[in-house]
Amino acid sequence: MHLEQINSPEQLKKLPVRELPRLAEEIRHFLIESLSVTGGHLGSNLGVVELTLALHYLFDSPKDRLLWDVGHQAYVHKILTGRRSQFDTLRQYKGLCGFPKMAESEHDIWETGHSSTSLSAAMGMAVARDLKGEDHRVIPIIGDGALTGGMALEALNHIGNEKRNIMVILNDNEMSISPNVGAIHNYLGKLRTHRHYHKLKEEVEYFLKKIPSVGGAFATAAERIKDSMKFLVVSGVLFEKLGFTYLGPVSGHNLDELMECLRLADQTKGPVLVHVVTVKGKGYLPAEAQAEKFHGVSKGYKLEANKEAKKETPVKYAKVFGDTLIQLAETDKRVVGVTPAMLGGSGMNEFASKFPDRCFDVGIAEQHAGTFAAGLATQGMKPVLAIYSTFLQRAYDQVIHDIARQNLNVVLAVDRAGFVGADGETHQGIYDIAYLRCIPNLVVMMPKDENEFRHMLYTAYRTNGPIAVRFPRGTGIGVEMDPELKELPIGKSEVLREGGDVALLAFGTMVPLALEAAERLANEGVEAKVVNARFAKPLDTELLDRLNMEGTPVVTIEEGCVSGGFGSAVLEYFSGREDSGVPVQIMGVPDYFVEHGDVKDQLSEVGLTVENIAQNAHQIIADHRQRV
Amino acid sequence: MHLEQINSPEQLKKLPVRELPRLAEEIRHFLIESLSVTGGHLGSNLGVVELTLALHYLFDSPKDRLLWDVGHQAYVHKILTGRRSQFDTLRQYKGLCGFPKMAESEHDIWETGHSSTSLSAAMGMAVARDLKGEDHRVIPIIGDGALTGGMALEALNHIGNEKRNIMVILNDNEMSISPNVGAIHNYLGKLRTHRHYHKLKEEVEYFLKKIPSVGGAFATAAERIKDSMKFLVVSGVLFEKLGFTYLGPVSGHNLDELMECLRLADQTKGPVLVHVVTVKGKGYLPAEAQAEKFHGVSKGYKLEANKEAKKETPVKYAKVFGDTLIQLAETDKRVVGVTPAMLGGSGMNEFASKFPDRCFDVGIAEQHAGTFAAGLATQGMKPVLAIYSTFLQRAYDQVIHDIARQNLNVVLAVDRAGFVGADGETHQGIYDIAYLRCIPNLVVMMPKDENEFRHMLYTAYRTNGPIAVRFPRGTGIGVEMDPELKELPIGKSEVLREGGDVALLAFGTMVPLALEAAERLANEGVEAKVVNARFAKPLDTELLDRLNMEGTPVVTIEEGCVSGGFGSAVLEYFSGREDSGVPVQIMGVPDYFVEHGDVKDQLSEVGLTVENIAQNAHQIIADHRQRV
Repeated sequence: MHLEQINSPEQLKKLPVRELPRLAEEIRHFLIESLSVTGGHLGSNLGVVELTLALHYLFDSPKDRLLWDVGHQAYVHKILTGRRSQFDTLRQYKGLCGFPKMAESEHDIWETGHSSTSLSAAMGMAVARDLKGEDHRVIPIIGDGALTGGMALEALNHIGNEKRNIMVILNDNEMSISPNVGAIHNYLGKLRTHRHYHKLKEEVEYFLKKIPSVGGAFATAAERIKDSMKFLVVSGVLFEKLGFTYLGPVSGHNLDELMECLRLADQTKGPVLVHVVTVKGKGYLPAEAQAEKFHGVSKGYKLEANKEAKKETPVKYAKVFGDTLIQLAETDKRVVGVTPAMLGGSGMNEFASKFPDRCFDVGIAEQHAGTFAAGLATQGMKPVLAIYSTFLQRAYDQVIHDIARQNLNVVLAVDRAGFVGADGETHQGIYDIAYLRCIPNLVVMMPKDENEFRHMLYTAYRTNGPIAVRFPRGTGIGVEMDPELKELPIGKSEVLREGGDVALLAFGTMVPLALEAAERLANEGVEAKVVNARFAKPLDTELLDRLNMEGTPVVTIEEGCVSGGFGSAVLEYFSGREDSGVPVQIMGVPDYFVEHGDVKDQLSEVGLTVENIAQNAHQIIADHRQRV
Repeated sequence: MHLEQINSPEQLKKLPVRELPRLAEEIRHFLIESLSVTGGHLGSNLGVVELTLALHYLFDSPKDRLLWDVGHQAYVHKILTGRRSQFDTLRQYKGLCGFPKMAESEHDIWETGHSSTSLSAAMGMAVARDLKGEDHRVIPIIGDGALTGGMALEALNHIGNEKRNIMVILNDNEMSISPNVGAIHNYLGKLRTHRHYHKLKEEVEYFLKKIPSVGGAFATAAERIKDSMKFLVVSGVLFEKLGFTYLGPVSGHNLDELMECLRLADQTKGPVLVHVVTVKGKGYLPAEAQAEKFHGVSKGYKLEANKEAKKETPVKYAKVFGDTLIQLAETDKRVVGVTPAMLGGSGMNEFASKFPDRCFDVGIAEQHAGTFAAGLATQGMKPVLAIYSTFLQRAYDQVIHDIARQNLNVVLAVDRAGFVGADGETHQGIYDIAYLRCIPNLVVMMPKDENEFRHMLYTAYRTNGPIAVRFPRGTGIGVEMDPELKELPIGKSEVLREGGDVALLAFGTMVPLALEAAERLANEGVEAKVVNARFAKPLDTELLDRLNMEGTPVVTIEEGCVSGGFGSAVLEYFSGREDSGVPVQIMGVPDYFVEHGDVKDQLSEVGLTVENIAQNAHQIIADHRQRV
């Protein structure tokens, strides 16, 4: 076993080149075994085994800066930089992070989780290097999916304009998470299919030498033909026009060719783009065959070929979303689904099959997705934009400037709202209540369970103006589904339990905890009213006025940041009322980035527990009595 | 005069083509005269006179959808669609909007203000058209500056992938507001300089026919050379690779050529890009010569050639920013300035001249600007990102995911925070306190005047971690400047006036109003404490604890949205304290989009006035007394 001997790039470099394929095999074996226990991003890491070996073999991390775009394909990098023994803790609470993490290793020099950031960061690092007079490589490794993200294209435009040495590795596996879409993808496809590119180029060169010498008016044209050599046939002209030297396509699994190409890139001045073609899931047949399914595997997932995932009970929120979208689309031709590269994750595969002409996966392009939906809405369509809370941050201006300001009928289906578990701090959906609530015209709601979720989607679809329905990652709580969809009154909460000592105003996922806390309080002699708030905006002012009048202390509970969240909205409302002496305690996520782990651990860490709700209720009742 | 007869596209169509140049001249004259009184975007509108005439002459708005990207070049469109007589109210309170506005005309079918949205919206409209089985044109008109915005590139990728009929007009005037930068700009430059493109193409075709027939191994290559004809020499290959038919470049001031090219585009199936070359400020020599200066002219600006703008007193905030940046850069080589296409607007021209290698105008690319700055910071540099509050919305995820999560030393100089006046609702900088305050690690501050602003920039530069300094558009209040820059303690406010009846906690621009209100209150027998809050995050908890303990009622005042703003932060803090019986009244911008006008009108409309502050103070004191 080579792998056991290698805990740093220095040790790797001591291995003869001819032994690298064997090491690659060992790494693949390790990944498959290890992730079968912990879960994690299997496919993307199997795809970059040789690429990662080549980069660490040829170059000198951390002096040379390796930036892993998105970051979920950095496992091999982690293995080679001394973290193999920690892989049994991968993505677990207090364990190894599933993304690059500076605190873990000096070889992690850029943290990510969201895609398309590596080129901008690389440009920053290259500029810093040049200003400081240093001399090292800057090597962002970016997938073809991430390349279509607007900020990556903005960065290409900047990098191509300056002649700084940056080696962009385009890891082209024809996939983001869903299969890729878009014109750039088509273009890369054409490049890939021309395997004999280099040979053909030579042929053309030879052929041109045979052209007879011409004079006069044609001389210029002849010269230009020769100058344009590199644009002949299919080539990397798109990148060359943007100022890059294009090298490739080269197989990302043939170490000899790959290393030759990387050496050539290293000798090239200015920005270079190396087009590396890899196979997602390489070396593990089930993963190669079903790349989307094996993009990420769950904890404890037994990686057996062709084994169907066991049926989830209760149903996943994403599945409820997809089914409801189909239901709406069946009765209304105006309903259109839009997703930025999350067709499967958002539960839209079946919708896409049933309504192919009304389903738009626009690729990793959140900004475009937002304004594309806005454009649809101006023409009387009913677009539903399925987007994760954390990725909606990428389309924030589009929500303000294009959707809300024009008061358009766009439904924002904000998935993965609240804690997301193993993906950790880059993916937590805990800011959306705050950043959406400040936008005029926008309604913000969250259901208490998967049944109410359907009604909320229906309500959003039926109501004029933009509405955000946020909902959690994972499964519902197992409630029965109503036979009919129904419209909920905008800005009206639901009282689930009466009680006069304290009111627990819970938003979305926190409702079941509030109910449980009320049970506990009842045993302790405290009668708690439990309210399913439903809306963070507009608030149920009638309810709040009543609580204010009755002088009932209030505890608000939400799976979102305390700063500017739902509780904050309640405080704002009370502050403007006369006689607003009602004390309010707000509970939510405190002001720091919460790391990976189980959602349960994360909730517990920040105090969003039944115990704490009950304790806060006792406290506020005591304070209130003391004051009155 | 033709112009007086034309109040609709129908009337325009009745004019013979040969009369259009005369009409163009009349429109230019009208624009120059009219804007010399009202102010407005002169240069960009002078540049699109013939283009707008040609579009309305050939096509059928509003059935055909004309989408003006950014929208500040839609004046000619407004003139031709019946709004000429309202131009004396342009950009004034309750007057004609400086951007397309649906409420004004059925010909305004997409509202903008921010750049790069038109292609995404156009795709939405084209999809809606096709789904509805309608038949009309969709024509976004986008500048070369806006084209480099990430979302426009995302949209190109989507549009090029589908074969829908969309006619993109690329209005290439070599300028966004500052001169353009980037690889795409360079590429367009090459296209422009090949004026004899069409002629050359013919030459090459003729030349290729002369090539002797070859067989065997070279036959393929010869065929491919012929296939690749369109990529020879310089052409629109970049756009063609993205799936567009490229037409141009064509002069945007030669109506015959322009209309011929547009007719050709109209006959082409699928996505077409028409490359139109225009001159910003065309027909008005001073504006042609100084395009950036004449991009927008101020109200009452006398448009005399070569006349220098009179010296502003007091100094502009942007100028203070630029000067302080120079001061910091002179003593610390790590200081780098970054701007997304707002070099002049952000007061960085002098900095750019003095430190050309440490000044980066990355073009309209807010996302890239944010993460580029983050990349610089990881390498120990001290990047200062100058960005307007409303455009920072475009880089929101970059602030959360890249800058704050990695806790990097990036200074966000958030310009145009608060009301911006004539640009109106698309440009109001009123959400930033709310959307920044919820981000962990981030400090958010605002100075009471231009002198304190310098200290805040210095403080931000000196402090570890990310800091946002928001500051208003326009001029300071005329205070004296301290000789030395000084570091302010983070999270500490400044008490400007003592008083025990009520505390006025004012943030930034609201401090002078609070002081004036305190004067008024004193005359009315009320002693108000006036606090310059300085920080929206972290709060001065020591001060708040004292107010809480003393039971002083509080009025918070900020030029930002009430939802989730500074006042909301104060409420959150108090809600967690024991004995928090202190009543708080929060004043800020209510929950709707505030339209264009003078900043004074806007402040008055939302009740951010001295009178209202005083009145709220009286009210809260009365309420408090009643309760205690």
